[in-house]
Amino acid sequence: MIEKKIVGEKAVEFIKDGMTVGLGTGSTVYYTIMKLGQLMKEGLSIKGVPTSIQTEQLANECGIPLVTFKEINHIDVTIDGADEVDPQLSLIKGGGGALLREKIIARAAKSFIVVADPAKMVDYLGAFPLPIEVVPFGVEMTNKQIRLLGAETKIRSANNGPYKSDNGNYIIDAKFPNILDPVTLEQKLNMIPGVVENGLFNQMADAVITLNADKQIVVKNRS
Amino acid sequence: MIEKKIVGEKAVEFIKDGMTVGLGTGSTVYYTIMKLGQLMKEGLSIKGVPTSIQTEQLANECGIPLVTFKEINHIDVTIDGADEVDPQLSLIKGGGGALLREKIIARAAKSFIVVADPAKMVDYLGAFPLPIEVVPFGVEMTNKQIRLLGAETKIRSANNGPYKSDNGNYIIDAKFPNILDPVTLEQKLNMIPGVVENGLFNQMADAVITLNADKQIVVKNRS
Repeated sequence: MIEKKIVGEKAVEFIKDGMTVGLGTGSTVYYTIMKLGQLMKEGLSIKGVPTSIQTEQLANECGIPLVTFKEINHIDVTIDGADEVDPQLSLIKGGGGALLREKIIARAAKSFIVVADPAKMVDYLGAFPLPIEVVPFGVEMTNKQIRLLGAETKIRSANNGPYKSDNGNYIIDAKFPNILDPVTLEQKLNMIPGVVENGLFNQMADAVITLNADKQIVVKNRS
Repeated sequence: MIEKKIVGEKAVEFIKDGMTVGLGTGSTVYYTIMKLGQLMKEGLSIKGVPTSIQTEQLANECGIPLVTFKEINHIDVTIDGADEVDPQLSLIKGGGGALLREKIIARAAKSFIVVADPAKMVDYLGAFPLPIEVVPFGVEMTNKQIRLLGAETKIRSANNGPYKSDNGNYIIDAKFPNILDPVTLEQKLNMIPGVVENGLFNQMADAVITLNADKQIVVKNRS
């Protein structure tokens, strides 16, 4: 998709030689990683920290050397996609199920840049069901507590039973009405015992790269 | 220890016939479970929800039938111990490593009763290092975030490597100075990506059973 390609490739402008880069997962950041691979062939030198096994494989194919948290002190820039972005640059992430690793790698970065095609830009978060990672033990009780916050919920399923995250946990997809106050909702969710993490990324994105109505690239900075 | 026995046995007064009871883990609630087993031989009928494999075995030996979350709608009373109790009945729990299951089962109960020998009663929480359950992925970064809140930390170890919780996670023991505001600290910890749960139990205990300076049983209710 041409929009994803334009947006994804633009993000490499935030990467400088020698940086440690958090590499997100998804169909837009795919183009960022491909472009980084091309720039490395032209002399750019970076190290990557992948948010998923899928991205690890892609980075290997592109010749981006990977490092683990044990080998580094910080991440300079993390680039990742989002399922929804609101005007305050709050995000819903986790459609792909990797929200926890993505959040750890976004939080560890000095700068967090989001690439989002225009379809992801919304007035209010919540049309996309919010992914919530929960421990398998007591999932019935945890699910009940989430519903008490006003959501319709569904435990995500895979081929043969519940979907399991990279960390061995379940994902509950929670359909809230328009999320008017994502900061408070994130806090309430994280206070429920059994909730490991949730897909609300508030006050984290430093900039979002997208296209405006005229199909021109815009970089929105968080105020 | 006679104090633990007196306190632990007193807790059965909160249990009525037909109840579903959350069964904690530890050297004081051990006496609660033993006493419940005795009362069942005399005609009491209850069901138990165990917080650990250890308690599951003890309950089986005592003849207390066990149920899982799938089979129940709620828990009537949960009885558990604590590592520290402050005057507002905030607790530190998790010395035994089962804090997450204990918190889920405490939160699911209509009433949460704590049994604590006098040595556990403190003016301020924090002499006991606070156990924090974290996902193995990115533990170095999560540890760093916890230290930024002012703690000295140690990843709990077992015989051959890091200790693993029942949920497959690590435990970080965090030594804070006197914890003057446990409510805020609990929120800050839960907002760190990678933190699954922490051992602060605030505004949860409805009553704490202990002994006063004259070795008499007292039941402190949360105001």
